[in-house]
Amino acid sequence: MATPIEDEFELIATYFAPLALGYDGALGLEDDAALVDLPPGERLVATCDALVAGVHFLPDDPADLIARKALRVNLSDLASMGARPLVYLLNLILPRDTEAEWVADFAAGLATDQAEFGVHLAGGDTVASDGPLTIAITALGSVVRGSELRRAGARAGDVLYVSGQVGDAALGLLVLQEELEGPSAEACADLVARYRLPRPRLALGARLVGLAHAAIDVSDGLVADAGHVCDASGLGAVLNGPDLPLSPAARRLVAADPSWLARLAAGGDDYELLFAVAEADAESVADLAGELDLPLSPIGRLVEGRSVRLLDAAGAEVEVGKGGWGHFRERPA
Amino acid sequence: MATPIEDEFELIATYFAPLALGYDGALGLEDDAALVDLPPGERLVATCDALVAGVHFLPDDPADLIARKALRVNLSDLASMGARPLVYLLNLILPRDTEAEWVADFAAGLATDQAEFGVHLAGGDTVASDGPLTIAITALGSVVRGSELRRAGARAGDVLYVSGQVGDAALGLLVLQEELEGPSAEACADLVARYRLPRPRLALGARLVGLAHAAIDVSDGLVADAGHVCDASGLGAVLNGPDLPLSPAARRLVAADPSWLARLAAGGDDYELLFAVAEADAESVADLAGELDLPLSPIGRLVEGRSVRLLDAAGAEVEVGKGGWGHFRERPA
Repeated sequence: MATPIEDEFELIATYFAPLALGYDGALGLEDDAALVDLPPGERLVATCDALVAGVHFLPDDPADLIARKALRVNLSDLASMGARPLVYLLNLILPRDTEAEWVADFAAGLATDQAEFGVHLAGGDTVASDGPLTIAITALGSVVRGSELRRAGARAGDVLYVSGQVGDAALGLLVLQEELEGPSAEACADLVARYRLPRPRLALGARLVGLAHAAIDVSDGLVADAGHVCDASGLGAVLNGPDLPLSPAARRLVAADPSWLARLAAGGDDYELLFAVAEADAESVADLAGELDLPLSPIGRLVEGRSVRLLDAAGAEVEVGKGGWGHFRERPA
Repeated sequence: MATPIEDEFELIATYFAPLALGYDGALGLEDDAALVDLPPGERLVATCDALVAGVHFLPDDPADLIARKALRVNLSDLASMGARPLVYLLNLILPRDTEAEWVADFAAGLATDQAEFGVHLAGGDTVASDGPLTIAITALGSVVRGSELRRAGARAGDVLYVSGQVGDAALGLLVLQEELEGPSAEACADLVARYRLPRPRLALGARLVGLAHAAIDVSDGLVADAGHVCDASGLGAVLNGPDLPLSPAARRLVAADPSWLARLAAGGDDYELLFAVAEADAESVADLAGELDLPLSPIGRLVEGRSVRLLDAAGAEVEVGKGGWGHFRERPA
């Protein structure tokens, strides 16, 4: 039932124009650019992230999940700035032998997440090439002028919080690579879902405006991203290993082999929010966690200095290396 | 003197952060997203176009020219909407063996065009992959609310104008592919320059606001893009072959073999503006051409109907086929 793609204009009309229907400024995807109006007093927040097959996802991942991940990692960047998403633009670079059915599934995934997060496709570009499937999305959002969250702004003594659980996405990748033994089949499925389908914390990001001094989304890895906040804020941080919010599967791995702690703290792709709050506002954070039904765990503290140190239960420093991974150093898939 | 790239963070700090220096909203490229303020009463105009090695440029084209073309094709989309460019975001997907010198040249090309067109880098993302070099740029501009140019809006009887000369970029590609004989070495160099370095008609686009009923930039080919205006406006068009503004080299090819006319009218990548103006405003267009020192040639007329017809000197219809090219049908390079 494989249908070859004849024409990118038809592709756009059939699969992508419907995704723009709810947004007049998309001009039906029939013009050279999209129009976006900002609410009065708000400023635009713009971010772009590209996902490449074999680097950010596995080439045989389901098309709808690839689409949703590509959109969600961009929405996560908006969340980390406290912004509300408006629209996105999609550069889709397809292998020349892509079949229409694949594109249909890809578009269906976008439709699902557009409904979930209240965004629309506003424009884009489709190209066929001999290279790997590549998806470059630009997400546009808005935030009340001056209220945006930044990496800079954390203060010494602030408590560092992280939402949800960390390390599961890195474990999910290991499951897909058949390099993880131990967790049950059900636990493995959950871990894979965390890798394939991050959850941009938009509601949390919006509520952190006025509460957090600094924020970032955890994409490079907990320690690496804590380092980005520290660098931008001119501070260091101490993270308490036993306080990291881990899933039961991750917790069991650490119990069996404590060296897993460093790997989980270095693993990327969680797309949780890491944020710094004054100690006096601990109760507000706890209230927010209850209101959003989302764990917000204090995992450490901003300190004078420039280094990020991860401590184990005995207070000894755990070596994490640089944390995260470099595109020019390693190949995850 | 080839230097391998160690780390994308260093790459960004060394080569790309300087391109963001003049724009506070870029936050030094150190945050998750960029901030953009719009002038009061203006709306955002957003466009994205990706260029892939082997599809949109030749892999051994000079790095600075690849960078400038990638930026310029996006600025051209802003020009066609009558927008003023503000900033751009850059997704750069580099082959894993890219050398630092190549990136330095690429960034130098962007710096040149930032100065020429008054834009800044505001954000982006760098990825290493096993695929071809891919550049996905999102350009953001602004236009006074309600004054944006669209493809829709042309009226029957309007005169269709095109800026500059058409067909030269397609000839330049043929020169690079060693498939063109005839033009002198000097003429060939000019044609290649037209292919490699389009000239976004930003000044013209801004001045067409309030004068043109519809506009588009010529990227798919003159006939194909006239068809886009016709489709959006619910009209047809008649183009007069002898009125097409051709370079001396192109003119000599047509004189030697009239079948060249159809090929030039179908060739893409010119990035000139094609626009529809009421016949009564012909003098304003002529004045504007003088003021901008840019040829603005009347090449045909919008008519009732839905087809675009190209006529030769004898008034006979010239077959152009679909015009332009389809990503899933052909491979230009």
